[in-house]
Order: sequence, then structure tokens, then C-alpha cells
Amino acid sequence: MGINGQQLWGESMIIPPLPPNFGRGVGRPSKTRRRESDEVINKQKKRSRGKQPMPEIQFLLPPDSNWLDLHQEEVQDGWSQPSTAISSIQISQFPSHGAAAASPTWQHKNKGSMLVQLLFFSSVLLSCISNGSAGVTSTFVRNEWPSVDIPLDNEVFAVPKGYNAPQQVHITQGDYDGKAVIISWVTADEEGSNKVRYGLSEGKYEFTAEGTVQNYTFYNYKSGYIHQCLVDGLQYDTKYFYEIGDGDSSRRFWFRTPSPIDPDAPYKFGIIGDLGQTYNSLSTIEHCMQTGAETILFVGDLSYADRYKYHDVGVRWDSWGRFAERSAAYQPWIWSAGNHEIEYFPYMGEVIPFRNYLHRYPTPYLASESSSPLWYAVRRASAHIIVLSSYSPFVKYTPQWKWLEQELKRVDRKKTPWLIVLMHAPMYNSNDAHFMEGESMRAVFESWFCRYKVDVVFAGHVHAYERSYRISNIRYNVSSGASYPVPDKSAPVYITVGDGGNQEGLALRFRDPQPDYSAFREASYGHSTLEIKNKTHALYHWNRNDDGKRVPTDSFGNQSSKKKTEEKPSSLCPIQFTTESDIVNLHRNRRSADVAHHKSLLFRLVGISS
Amino acid sequence: MGINGQQLWGESMIIPPLPPNFGRGVGRPSKTRRRESDEVINKQKKRSRGKQPMPEIQFLLPPDSNWLDLHQEEVQDGWSQPSTAISSIQISQFPSHGAAAASPTWQHKNKGSMLVQLLFFSSVLLSCISNGSAGVTSTFVRNEWPSVDIPLDNEVFAVPKGYNAPQQVHITQGDYDGKAVIISWVTADEEGSNKVRYGLSEGKYEFTAEGTVQNYTFYNYKSGYIHQCLVDGLQYDTKYFYEIGDGDSSRRFWFRTPSPIDPDAPYKFGIIGDLGQTYNSLSTIEHCMQTGAETILFVGDLSYADRYKYHDVGVRWDSWGRFAERSAAYQPWIWSAGNHEIEYFPYMGEVIPFRNYLHRYPTPYLASESSSPLWYAVRRASAHIIVLSSYSPFVKYTPQWKWLEQELKRVDRKKTPWLIVLMHAPMYNSNDAHFMEGESMRAVFESWFCRYKVDVVFAGHVHAYERSYRISNIRYNVSSGASYPVPDKSAPVYITVGDGGNQEGLALRFRDPQPDYSAFREASYGHSTLEIKNKTHALYHWNRNDDGKRVPTDSFGNQSSKKKTEEKPSSLCPIQFTTESDIVNLHRNRRSADVAHHKSLLFRLVGISS
Repeated sequence: MGINGQQLWGESMIIPPLPPNFGRGVGRPSKTRRRESDEVINKQKKRSRGKQPMPEIQFLLPPDSNWLDLHQEEVQDGWSQPSTAISSIQISQFPSHGAAAASPTWQHKNKGSMLVQLLFFSSVLLSCISNGSAGVTSTFVRNEWPSVDIPLDNEVFAVPKGYNAPQQVHITQGDYDGKAVIISWVTADEEGSNKVRYGLSEGKYEFTAEGTVQNYTFYNYKSGYIHQCLVDGLQYDTKYFYEIGDGDSSRRFWFRTPSPIDPDAPYKFGIIGDLGQTYNSLSTIEHCMQTGAETILFVGDLSYADRYKYHDVGVRWDSWGRFAERSAAYQPWIWSAGNHEIEYFPYMGEVIPFRNYLHRYPTPYLASESSSPLWYAVRRASAHIIVLSSYSPFVKYTPQWKWLEQELKRVDRKKTPWLIVLMHAPMYNSNDAHFMEGESMRAVFESWFCRYKVDVVFAGHVHAYERSYRISNIRYNVSSGASYPVPDKSAPVYITVGDGGNQEGLALRFRDPQPDYSAFREASYGHSTLEIKNKTHALYHWNRNDDGKRVPTDSFGNQSSKKKTEEKPSSLCPIQFTTESDIVNLHRNRRSADVAHHKSLLFRLVGISS
Repeated sequence: MGINGQQLWGESMIIPPLPPNFGRGVGRPSKTRRRESDEVINKQKKRSRGKQPMPEIQFLLPPDSNWLDLHQEEVQDGWSQPSTAISSIQISQFPSHGAAAASPTWQHKNKGSMLVQLLFFSSVLLSCISNGSAGVTSTFVRNEWPSVDIPLDNEVFAVPKGYNAPQQVHITQGDYDGKAVIISWVTADEEGSNKVRYGLSEGKYEFTAEGTVQNYTFYNYKSGYIHQCLVDGLQYDTKYFYEIGDGDSSRRFWFRTPSPIDPDAPYKFGIIGDLGQTYNSLSTIEHCMQTGAETILFVGDLSYADRYKYHDVGVRWDSWGRFAERSAAYQPWIWSAGNHEIEYFPYMGEVIPFRNYLHRYPTPYLASESSSPLWYAVRRASAHIIVLSSYSPFVKYTPQWKWLEQELKRVDRKKTPWLIVLMHAPMYNSNDAHFMEGESMRAVFESWFCRYKVDVVFAGHVHAYERSYRISNIRYNVSSGASYPVPDKSAPVYITVGDGGNQEGLALRFRDPQPDYSAFREASYGHSTLEIKNKTHALYHWNRNDDGKRVPTDSFGNQSSKKKTEEKPSSLCPIQFTTESDIVNLHRNRRSADVAHHKSLLFRLVGISS
């Protein structure tokens, strides 16, 4: 039972129970759960007894009764919704969770006796106490590939065959509401055509759009011909096929438009950050493609080309463009810029920020009345997505601040109930890496996020995964007020997904003890998905990358074909399954069952039972 | 004695005693001191007794003994340098202070008996206790002119006579070390000459420098021809005469180069912020000119032209250029940009920040290896001056951050012992206006300011005057550590001088109670001077504007003259005297006598006497 209890604690306590009529979700078998549970237990053993062997039961007891008093006071100060909170943990409701219901192991457990349930419940509570925090620091360590970029001659970066063939193809939303895309590609040999031919069935391109072309130099690197074409006036909820390039070198792809703006429109987003171009990056992008995510929310740090010098910077922007094409030519990527896009290089006379990035990754900023491609908003299905720039001016009076002030007023929760913010540097982070680097933006925007009840803020930057409770620090000021973050139902959940897998490696050192605001954290590569079900419910997953062995890159499919068909997203990783490593149901009405209240819930129960 | 004690408390307690060999300074008669003391007493009466008349002695007693305990704990926590601090208040040393020595009233007081000294001392301490803070909130209110811009047809904005005559003349340092100036001017009718003719005696211009010319449009406003000319290779410590413009329309001015970079070089800076173009602005600029300040450190918000619309924005930039010329054509102004320079106007399609400002106010940013005119550094005599941009990116990884990281390493305290930072939004401010707006930059740069022992940070933005103790908040973080600022010998003194006098008026509401970090604050118009004496001592004044009646603007002198001589800085204000409203000796070695330790000093003494 110790193992089973731990297993439930490790994942289920961060899953609130769902209403009986909630959809079944996308459950997958939990083959790795037992191993993860072992890890958690090993961690707790280590914490509680150091190098001294002790009976397993002992580490579950509260080590210090004063500690309990302290945290019960916290409940009274604001961590509480006692009556509703207590009622929301009903073990009999657990099977209604979609993911869990798909697990035979899980179902078996819930056939146990009342005694087993009570034992489980106690172990959950006490293991929490022994941690000194309701937050979880997962010690799971998965084998990773070396943090080095894939060599340029690897097939993952292969230049498509044919003279002047379009490469580095990517699409992004082209308007405010999802009836347009911007298609970008590069031709290496000459300008070539700016045209996109597109239509509703494969090989039948009855429409044409004309784009623009540009190139630029960066130190002594000269870019290819960068084409950007707005394809607008599209129908909602429709698969489009498109063709770019000339003659035998032309290439074919497809994309799917979202449903019309509608509060109950379901939609699945993938979230990736800090991707880079290593084998780990490849694993992440291909795992994400397997989830069926329809659009990627990218939270900054694309190519890590700035870790190269001189001519190679541009070369690695090109290779990354070819690398990301496997997804970005089919699913729109909503871009936000990270610090690796700044590329301030006085030593080679390149000091204008974001030059490579801005030339290559257009955004529909004008549609949301922004004055910069670096901050903007799009609406998609039932979501209003706001993209912020951590490395542009954002304090009061600056253009980004003034724009956001207006954009937040334009959010219509009756049409787009889900309000999502993307940025690069996280406002809440408890990793040693980049700790407090988001403090400047927090000081400026956090009160707005609470006032407008942003649902979730996704960030990258820290090469690990972390999720916060719903907390805010808006009552802090330099002379009085609250000193530290407090639970706040109006606050977003802050999620850091900077674990895309770049050459800088993982950020392995979390601050100890885990701060109160941190709900779950683990230093593994992965990506997230946010699956909006309707106007009130969404299922959020963080998915750790798999254990697959090193990619057999020589199995890369032949891209050239005499018979033109639209290209398939290629998979170079033998994906076994996607591990659901952190799963949260988001309730827009932020009831007591929401993620913010697990801490108060646990402490209140401890208070009653003690 | 109550009155005398209050009088000394109101000013002297913020003046540390000086070593016997310290220079005499620039003392002026204190004609307004008695009236200020009355104000302080009235304020304290109001605070302590509300509407109930009480004997005057009672409000001087500590109202609550618990309060004393609390603050004695603070002493133990870090506000203390007890033994040296106590010895540094020796009343017999007071006459050695230059400013005080010049006051007959002051000298008289120090001839009093030991009993009188003790009484004074007690009243100082107890009045501090009754305030609940060692900081001073002055309630002095001086009559002010209406906060409206001077009409455009006023002589203060007069266009110089003659076809295409140069106008809006201003100079700034042109290199890193003070051997160059950039001279800027505008011609309205045609481009005209870009030449500056200059020399060592009036009317004898043996040298010539050639500049550039440009113009620009802003919405439907078309600028004049903006000339900028670098005059370099100058001799140190030399008065230069210069002539610009053609034929009868030419105009003559002068400037003085600083002494060579030398740690003991004395130098006098004036500090002005948030100037605008009202009658109060005029009073401020002319008062500052009377102090003999050799260079103006301007902390942002020049013209407030952004409060106009469409064509008038440009018009008011022009009028401000003519307004400021009376000083800026003679004394270099070291520019920093404020929020009123941003001018983000989507309604008229003008969204590129700082456009008017950057076209008109060049800075020598390349000389300090900066990539933007908005942040840079200059060295002048014994001072290293760093200009930061509050409204440009400044977080980690941004160009400003990377530049400052390098520039701080270039500071050589053996050559320039005085390290001064300018910015617009203050990092410490206790006014309701703009409270916590500097928090973002504080979170990023404060630790560097302490590590490099910046002497003083000047800011504007808040339309009032305030000076901090030497404190820092660098131990604060979102999960642990100190919650609030603590005394820190390595920290700068933060001074807000946003009280230049613009059309937005004064920021009259200070937060109550006065935070521990705030040493002195008053909502009056004024400017500051920083008079560096040698490598270890400087005298800092904040000077409140005078009581002068409304400016008799029709007395403006005729600028045109058949006989060409260099023009004199014109005075339109009948200045009576400059009131020294806040005076501080800065000791670079930050001994116990320095401004940071008055609070601990007082509390320690209270602890001993109680």
C-alpha cells in the first residue's frame, strides 16, 4: 500500500475530481507509473532518513509538530476553502477522470475496501507533511541524449531535393480570429515564386496568394530568399492543401483551420519551449506531433543559433528552419521570442536585437493593433492567446504595456473563455537557473493577470518543467503589505515548459525547500498539451519525453518523389508512448476543486485529523 | 527652544558633522528657515493632538513604549553602528558645516549653554519618535504658478531674429572624457551651414568643425533642419567661444571644458528633471543657472510635448528647445530619456518610441561602446556618470543589461571616485505617484549598484523631491530572504528630483507613514546641485524654487544685436535667493557619519536614554 499510496500521491493529488458529466479525455496506459512511484519513494526515503535505514512507516509521520501549527495558520490566512475543499476529495470520484479511467491498475485500486481508501488517504496526507510542502519535486531522471546539436550533415536537416526547392517551411496564424495563415519559406538559389497555390483537396489548388520576398545579411552571412505569404479569407474548420515552389522543385503540405470563435469549441494546443536542435529537441518535437496538437504555442528560444559565431549563426538558423518544418509546415506555431533570439553581438558589429528572428518568423501583430511583431494576440476556437516579449520594453508607458492594457479590454470571455498568456521568462520559477529573472515583468503585469483572471501563463527559459498553484504576489510592495505570494483564486496557473531539449542541457538544481507557490517540478525534457473541452473544462498534460534509444537517423524517409503528394510529417524517433507526467484539469470557474487549493485542502484536513 | 529644536531637526539632523579640515562650502543665508520650522511644528501638532489643544511638550513624548521596543529590535537587526554613530553627533562640530556657518542664527545657537544643547538634543530625538520615523516629510508649501505651459507667443520662446537664424541651441559632452562637445541647433528656413566656428577668445574663431543636418516628419509636422556637430580635440579646463549660423543671422555662445579626469578634481553638477515649459519650469532652470552648476545632469522628461496632439507635438518640442537654450547652449546637458519622450501615439500612426527625442538630442553613446543613444556613460572631472533608460529593455540578456555589465567594470575609482547613475523612474520612491514603478529596474540593477558602490542615483518621474537612506532590498526574493529594504553601506543614496515644474503639477500625496528607507521628502519645485570637493567629499543640495512673483515676461532682453558678442544666459525670473532645502554631505568612504546611519543613530540613542 505504501507503493500504491505513493503512486496516487505522485500524480493523482494534483488531479482534482471531476463532475460526473465530464468527458473521458485522452487516457493512455500508464506503463511507467510504477517506476515513477519508486522514484518518489526513494526520494522521500532519502529526505527523511538521510543515510540511516529506518522503518518505512516512520518517515511518513510528521517530524515536527510546530511545523503543523505554522501551516495551519497559513490556512487561516488564506489557503482555505475548508468545507467545499474537503468535500471535493471523494475517492469514489477518482474513476471519473479520463486518463485514470483508462488504466486498469487504477480501476483495480478503486475496488479496494474502505480501509484501503483510508490508508491511502493517510499516506497521501502524511507524505505531504514529510515533504514540508504540498508541492512535488519529482526526482525522476530519464536517460537523455548528449546536449549537443545534431551535426549539420544529419538527415534531420536535409535540404529538399531540386533546384531552389522551398525549405524551412512554417506557418502561423495570419489574422486575429483564425481565418488566415502566414506561410513562410526560404529558397536558396534564387528568389523564385512568391506564390502559394492552395485548395480544399490534395493536388487541386484552385486558389493562389502572392507573397513577398526579402533577404538580409548578418555579419558575413547572407540569408536565402525569405518568402512570406498571407493566405486569408479561409473557411473555418477546414483542411487546406497548399503548394509552394516552382516546377519539379515544388513542395506540398497541408494545414487545418480552427473552428469559428466559439466559447465551447474544443481545441488542442501543444506547448513547446527552448527547443534547439539536439536529439532531445527532435524527441520533443516528434512526441508533440504524436499528441495530435493542432497548434503549437511556442514560448521562445528557437534555434540556439546564437551559441555559434560569425557565419555559423545564420547557418544554424537555416538548419533549425529545416528541422522544425516537420511540424511547423502543418501546424501553425504561435511564436514568442526568447533571450536566444536577441543576438546582441558587439564583437561582430551586430547589436540590433532580434534581427535574425524578425526576418524569419512573421507574426500577425497588426491584426491585434500591436506595433511590434514581438507582442500580439490571436484568438483561436475558444482561446484568446496573448504573446508577450520578455526582452522588449514592458514597464508602464511603454508600447507593450499600453498595448496589453488595451488588448486585455478586448478579451471577450463570452466568446473566448480561455485566456492564455505566453512569455519567455517565467514570472514564477523555483529553479536555481534564472531564479527571479521574471520578477521585473511580474511587478508590472501580475495585477492585470489577476484582474482579468488569466487562466494559464506559459513560459520557457528554465530548462525544466514546473507548475505553480494559483498564487499572486500583488500585495507585496517595498514598504508594506504581504511579503510573499499568497493563494489567489483570480491568479493564473504559471507553467514553465523550457524543457524542449537544447544544447545547454537541463536545469537540474531546484531550490530547496520547494517554495509554497510551486506545485510540481521536474527536470526532464518534454512538452505540454492543453486540450480545451468546452467553455469550462480543459485537460492539461505535461509529457516527459520517452526512453527511446538514440535516433536511428539513417531511417529518414526519402522526401523526394516523382509523384507529388502532400508531404507527411516525418517521424525520426521510434516513439513508444507519451508519458503523462503532470496532469491537471483546469476549471475556469476556479472552484475549490481547482489546482490552487490542494495545499489548503491538505492542511485543513491535517488540522481536522490531528 | 521648541522652535529652535525643530528648526535644527528639520534640517541639521540630515547633515552629518564634518571633519575639521573640510572646506566651507557655499553657505547662503537661511531667510526662510523660520517659516519652514513653523510648518514642521504645525504638522506635528496636527499629528499628535488632532483637533484637541494640548500642551506643546506632550506631543514630544513617545506615545507608545511598545513602539520603542520594536525599533530597538530594528537596531539590532541592522540599523546600527552604535559606538561610532554616537560619537559622530557632537554638537560642537556643527559650526564646521559650511552652510550652517554662514547663518548668524545658527552661530548664535551654538553659543548656548550645555543645558540648551541637551534640550535641543532631546527634542530632536523625541520629535523623531513622535513621527514614528527618522525620515522627514516636509510640509512646506510654497506658492506656485499655475501648472500650465507658457503661451507660445511669450518671449521665453522667442525665435531669434534674422533669416534662418540658429535656434534651439544645446550642447552635450561629445566623448568619454570631456574633450569634446556635440553642438546641436535648428534652422527653420533652409538647411544653412553645418559649421561650428570656435576659438579661445570672444569673436576670434580660429577653428572650424563641420556637422550634419537632417529633418524628419512626425504625423503632419515637419521639423526644421536639425544640425549636429561634434567639436573634439579640445583642451581641458578651457573656455571656448563658438559661433553658428550664417552672416547677420549667426549667433555666438560659449562653453567651458572640464578639468582632466582626476580623482580630486572639484566639479559642480546641477540636476534637473521633468522640466516642461511652464513658469515653474522657468523658475527652476534659472535658479539652477544661478548656482554656477557647470554641467546639468538631466533625468528625463524634457518638453512634455506629448501632452499635445498632432502638429502641436512637434511645435512644443521646438518651443522647449528655444526655452532650454538659455542654459543648454552654455552648459552641457547630460540627457536621459523619460516616459514623456516615448510618444507612442497609435491614434496618429506614430508608434516608434523616442522619435522626436532621438532626432533632437544626440548623446555620445558610441564613446562608451553603447549600442543606443538612450544608455551610455561619460566621465567628467572626478565623476563617472552612467545614464540608463527606464523605458528600454533592461532585463538580463538585453543590450542595456549587457552594456551596463561591461561599463561598470570599466569604472576606475582611482581616476573617477564618484560614480553617479541617472535614470528616469526612481527605484525608491514613497510618493503615491508612480509608487513601485521603478521596481522592475530595481530587481535587475540594484545588486550591481551595491556591488560597485554607486554613490548616488538621480531619478525624476515623481513630481516632488525625495532622498533615501543608504538602503538595499537585494536580499528580497519571492520565496525567502529579507522582505523589505535594509540599511546597506554599499548602497547608493537614491534621490528623486522630478520637481522641475511641468504642466502636470506637483505630486502632493506622500505615503503615510513615511517608509524607513525615505530620509527626506517634500513636494515643491526645485533642482539639486552636487558639488564635488575632492575624491572623498561632496556637498549635495536640493534647492527649492523661490517665492518670486509671476515672471514679468515682458522684460525679456532683446536678443538681436548689430554688434556681435556671445550671448549671455538670460534671466527672466527676478531671483531673490536659492533656498537650501535639503543639504547632505556625501562621504565616499561611507563612514558612520554618512547619511545612511541617522536612523540607527537616533534609535540607538533612544535606546540608551530610555
